[in-house]
Amino acid sequence: MIIMKTEATEKQIDRVVKEIRKYGLRADVSRGEFKTVIGLIGDERKIPFDHFAALPGVKEVIKIEIPYKLISREYHKFFEGLESGTKVVEIGNVRIGNNELIVMAGPCAVESKKQLFRIAEGVKKAGTHILRGGVFKPRSSVHSFQGLGAIDWETAEKALMWLKETGEEFELPVVTEVRGEAYVDLVAEYADILQIGARNMYNQDLLTTVARKKKPVLLKRHFGASIEEFLSFAEYIAAEGNKDIILCERGIVPVGKGREYTRYTLDLAAIPAIRKETYLPIIADPSHGTGRRNLIFNMSCAAVAAGAHGLMIEVHYNPLEALVDGQQAITPDELENIIKACREISQIIGSKMNESQTDIR
Amino acid sequence: MIIMKTEATEKQIDRVVKEIRKYGLRADVSRGEFKTVIGLIGDERKIPFDHFAALPGVKEVIKIEIPYKLISREYHKFFEGLESGTKVVEIGNVRIGNNELIVMAGPCAVESKKQLFRIAEGVKKAGTHILRGGVFKPRSSVHSFQGLGAIDWETAEKALMWLKETGEEFELPVVTEVRGEAYVDLVAEYADILQIGARNMYNQDLLTTVARKKKPVLLKRHFGASIEEFLSFAEYIAAEGNKDIILCERGIVPVGKGREYTRYTLDLAAIPAIRKETYLPIIADPSHGTGRRNLIFNMSCAAVAAGAHGLMIEVHYNPLEALVDGQQAITPDELENIIKACREISQIIGSKMNESQTDIR
Amino acid sequence: MIIMKTEATEKQIDRVVKEIRKYGLRADVSRGEFKTVIGLIGDERKIPFDHFAALPGVKEVIKIEIPYKLISREYHKFFEGLESGTKVVEIGNVRIGNNELIVMAGPCAVESKKQLFRIAEGVKKAGTHILRGGVFKPRSSVHSFQGLGAIDWETAEKALMWLKETGEEFELPVVTEVRGEAYVDLVAEYADILQIGARNMYNQDLLTTVARKKKPVLLKRHFGASIEEFLSFAEYIAAEGNKDIILCERGIVPVGKGREYTRYTLDLAAIPAIRKETYLPIIADPSHGTGRRNLIFNMSCAAVAAGAHGLMIEVHYNPLEALVDGQQAITPDELENIIKACREISQIIGSKMNESQTDIR
Amino acid sequence: MIIMKTEATEKQIDRVVKEIRKYGLRADVSRGEFKTVIGLIGDERKIPFDHFAALPGVKEVIKIEIPYKLISREYHKFFEGLESGTKVVEIGNVRIGNNELIVMAGPCAVESKKQLFRIAEGVKKAGTHILRGGVFKPRSSVHSFQGLGAIDWETAEKALMWLKETGEEFELPVVTEVRGEAYVDLVAEYADILQIGARNMYNQDLLTTVARKKKPVLLKRHFGASIEEFLSFAEYIAAEGNKDIILCERGIVPVGKGREYTRYTLDLAAIPAIRKETYLPIIADPSHGTGRRNLIFNMSCAAVAAGAHGLMIEVHYNPLEALVDGQQAITPDELENIIKACREISQIIGSKMNESQTDIR
Repeated sequence: MIIMKTEATEKQIDRVVKEIRKYGLRADVSRGEFKTVIGLIGDERKIPFDHFAALPGVKEVIKIEIPYKLISREYHKFFEGLESGTKVVEIGNVRIGNNELIVMAGPCAVESKKQLFRIAEGVKKAGTHILRGGVFKPRSSVHSFQGLGAIDWETAEKALMWLKETGEEFELPVVTEVRGEAYVDLVAEYADILQIGARNMYNQDLLTTVARKKKPVLLKRHFGASIEEFLSFAEYIAAEGNKDIILCERGIVPVGKGREYTRYTLDLAAIPAIRKETYLPIIADPSHGTGRRNLIFNMSCAAVAAGAHGLMIEVHYNPLEALVDGQQAITPDELENIIKACREISQIIGSKMNESQTDIR
Repeated sequence: MIIMKTEATEKQIDRVVKEIRKYGLRADVSRGEFKTVIGLIGDERKIPFDHFAALPGVKEVIKIEIPYKLISREYHKFFEGLESGTKVVEIGNVRIGNNELIVMAGPCAVESKKQLFRIAEGVKKAGTHILRGGVFKPRSSVHSFQGLGAIDWETAEKALMWLKETGEEFELPVVTEVRGEAYVDLVAEYADILQIGARNMYNQDLLTTVARKKKPVLLKRHFGASIEEFLSFAEYIAAEGNKDIILCERGIVPVGKGREYTRYTLDLAAIPAIRKETYLPIIADPSHGTGRRNLIFNMSCAAVAAGAHGLMIEVHYNPLEALVDGQQAITPDELENIIKACREISQIIGSKMNESQTDIR
Repeated sequence: MIIMKTEATEKQIDRVVKEIRKYGLRADVSRGEFKTVIGLIGDERKIPFDHFAALPGVKEVIKIEIPYKLISREYHKFFEGLESGTKVVEIGNVRIGNNELIVMAGPCAVESKKQLFRIAEGVKKAGTHILRGGVFKPRSSVHSFQGLGAIDWETAEKALMWLKETGEEFELPVVTEVRGEAYVDLVAEYADILQIGARNMYNQDLLTTVARKKKPVLLKRHFGASIEEFLSFAEYIAAEGNKDIILCERGIVPVGKGREYTRYTLDLAAIPAIRKETYLPIIADPSHGTGRRNLIFNMSCAAVAAGAHGLMIEVHYNPLEALVDGQQAITPDELENIIKACREISQIIGSKMNESQTDIR
Repeated sequence: MIIMKTEATEKQIDRVVKEIRKYGLRADVSRGEFKTVIGLIGDERKIPFDHFAALPGVKEVIKIEIPYKLISREYHKFFEGLESGTKVVEIGNVRIGNNELIVMAGPCAVESKKQLFRIAEGVKKAGTHILRGGVFKPRSSVHSFQGLGAIDWETAEKALMWLKETGEEFELPVVTEVRGEAYVDLVAEYADILQIGARNMYNQDLLTTVARKKKPVLLKRHFGASIEEFLSFAEYIAAEGNKDIILCERGIVPVGKGREYTRYTLDLAAIPAIRKETYLPIIADPSHGTGRRNLIFNMSCAAVAAGAHGLMIEVHYNPLEALVDGQQAITPDELENIIKACREISQIIGSKMNESQTDIR
């Protein structure tokens, strides 16, 4: 990370960028009010840091040893002159990352326009901010329903259109998953947030391709990923110049023997731990994280208490009818009850955290 | 499980018990207002259930396939005639298992009477119900401080005495860990709750010996234990006729590579999942669960939101001075802030859970 | 799975296939000497099995409940009329899946033609059958060296060319990883085996795209994947009609606290367990699995003893100089020693397994 | 660790020991031919190392930062003047830790004298060195058969007597588990090796009590324990002056979702990794580690290839009849086949490891 002097000229900045490129790296130039900070993207081992420190206009060269530099609080501190705080990602009128709890809800899979409309109506009434709905469903078995997107291109586009139209009807921005590189352009045409599912967290080509669309990206943590890996792969998105990233904790691989009481282990402590490392907002998905309808109420509340900026919840007017993951879907009424409880908890957390001697930032 | 007819006589009950013993099993006789239920303890494979069903006074023979029968909701339903609810464990004036959040706090290890007194004063003022303090500290390394209890018998007794006296001084019942069978009698003389630490959860001889003291037992989940194993080992305590059991979630083994952001993975979804299986109260220990002072606030709130009946938190007036686990201790002031937040959350959870269509029971 | 009568006509087979498609599924038609078996690919829930059983020419309809039907021993049994055995995958003159141990070795990353040539010379002399070399290296950090393939298309092609030429020079077929869908055509032009890395195991779009190239595919198990998931994703490749699949165990996420002694946990019991489920050959990668040079000798031998059909090992003439993963590379001399030991073990396993009452098939 | 000068007098050694005790620690005095090494046992934080370095007769004070000092290769190096090698533990005529593979086999649980005799006869013929047989069986469910030892003291003693007599009959030393502190004296009267089961690995009071019997101890790794913890708890035994310790890898908690293909994950890479850390011999238990009869052949061979000094295997003449864990028992004939294969592999490993540039020590 190279910090330029306040009085550094554009020409001096350009020269630094060019020198960086000469070494096979890319530059992330952040122009703040008082200073410009240049982040190096790529393999820094060959960089002669002393040489850069001596270039005209350079104030300081700082090495950040963690693999997620661009999204780290440390980097942000220099870039924005902020000591703390979370980046607010804007999706239309919805702002995620500040004190207001944001809820993304909707069906696991889009099944028909009618189904989607009816669920959207329900979740809107319950207090949802963003409509979710899967068109491409990555499933563990090739013999399971893969979402309407898997049938053919035309059906995929039709389903995405329904999502967009329904979102507009209820004034809800929409989020949907992109499953493969081939669909990035298509999905980006219709969705407000591009979701990268847990199974694709390590798919760096998809991350890079999605990042370039310059739309907000929702990145789910892989169930086998450590916190360090999760943030390191978010860095792949930031490295393309797209820092509108929303992180999502959705459970890690279960450990131990015997009956399955929860589908995954929702790692809620990762939420405050991650908030101390990065300025990016983070939400939780208790639906996939637990896989059990009757655990969603408590785990939604717990996620918010842990410091989540938002929730992603699967809703169906008749969960038993859902084509995918019905056992984890809740009804719109239940969602309304959850949102009310979570909002109250969010306020308590917001006010008491200020009094905490060890607050989140 | 054998359910006796309402009009069954004592003699008929006795006969059933005797028959059970003939097969090498023990009987758990629960006399309710309207009926008596007899649980079988031991290897049931050889039991001729038809024979028992035909004995005079027997109404019904029901097989419970899970390994934790005596502490299961299903068994309790017959025993108490209750459809739901949690067993309230009483420790002096403190009642755990109902809607009031119970906090156990104090030093990780008792270091001196002065240290203990000063911390007890702080935690009492902060709103704590029960004083914790380790005299025997099971540590991973034989080269670490093992608690005053490990020095010699006399010092162990002195430290336990301090604990008891300090508890009396501040009107706080005390909980402390029993590390080995040899110390059960000694600890039971001074402590109000006998704690079995995570490392000893699988130590069934210790569980049995402790259970027989007929004092409330706090059983911590081992960090390698599944939910099924956790409940199956609690059953060892119940099998001795002691159902004053408080369960405690304190984190499971971390999974994944790289830097350690939390010491264990606090498995909060286990809390509502366990509450659906058993009528026993359950608390969380965010201090050991995270091992990081700056995660305690959020994870305490999250545990309560997940449905915990109480919390166990390590406190020190000067965490940096603590002989054991200082990096996870918080100050009395911070504890006060946490208790306030958690109480408010507890009330929200209590009231909204009733409205939930998928409530905890 | 639909088994046709021996005398079933092509027309009858066609009709079954058409009916399958009517329900939105695909058909995998396997024509054996005596009978034809038709596997259904897709969501079977809507299929009226009785209807199919009644179609002319149909002998039997069998449901396989596991998510990996096409690669299962059960399916293979009907298809090939074989009761046991492993499918032999042919790559040029090399045959993997029979009793001869196959070794794939080479540098972690291709760095230069000279480096590749020198290593290939060494591994050939040591007894290697297939040359490995990474052109695209998926790394956890965007700030690490990503392989020559990540620089630009031209460099990628040049590196692939080196690989092909070096392979030809030493008469070694080559295997290399495909990191993203965009590179599938390019890599397929140069490589004899297309490798899908552990991080991409869940990337079903990549699996499908690679499968269609009709070249042998090496699929590595993701470090967070259960055995069931691993086989279920191999099924995505088989579902495209490509059953030339080589499975590879390379370690799962480490569990537990404290110092890292091995980078992953090599799950060797998965090897015989998987061989009982599927007829596909399976190899092990002790280099990535342990991440420690001084564990490779023992873990290679152990993998072969566990029943692996082959090994994939990283070799460098000077491990300390390697740009990627030098700490896990061994020298050609060490490889020679390993291959000798493993061959002897392979023979013992081969002969004694026949005497085993519980042999692998 | 304090290394005394060659010419140090007994008086000087005594003074060092006394000074160590003054600080509340214990001393482990190892007298070699040329020098005496004194290990410190306990909390070293308060020790003024400079003071010790200045005492008469002291040559050098060396700090070992790992928690398993006394059993480490580093310590052994000074103590024995050896640069490498493994400690040979002697049990009667059986020596474990050198190049000969040692097999411990027998029933999971002792059921009757007749059953034990018949199995012992079979395993002896198959080539077994040590007879195993559980009298106390720690089970997850209180409702399962707990071994004859759990019935009453008299039955426990009778079963132990059978074990001893049967061992003598077939000239096989015997190993059996001690489940609780109360049984240590009893078991020590009859058994040649005292086994501490996986569930009790963290039970430091049991470890200490068992260690004091001065008989060889077999310590199984807990399924939730890291390698560092495993060795740190073995250190508790060594700290009592008993270094006749045999380590045993028996599988760690399974990770991941879906069907269970193996009961635990046998962590074979831990074997060579542990051999590089400590001079203690290590064996593997593929019976508990896999829980599947048809995986024992391969995983026994794999464990030996990984560097295990021995194996512990459950055998029953009729596995389907066994009261405990029948699904993982093999027949004596199958054992014979395994032992033959493993011996051949052991010889290959022994000879090739010498040629390895990265051999185990």
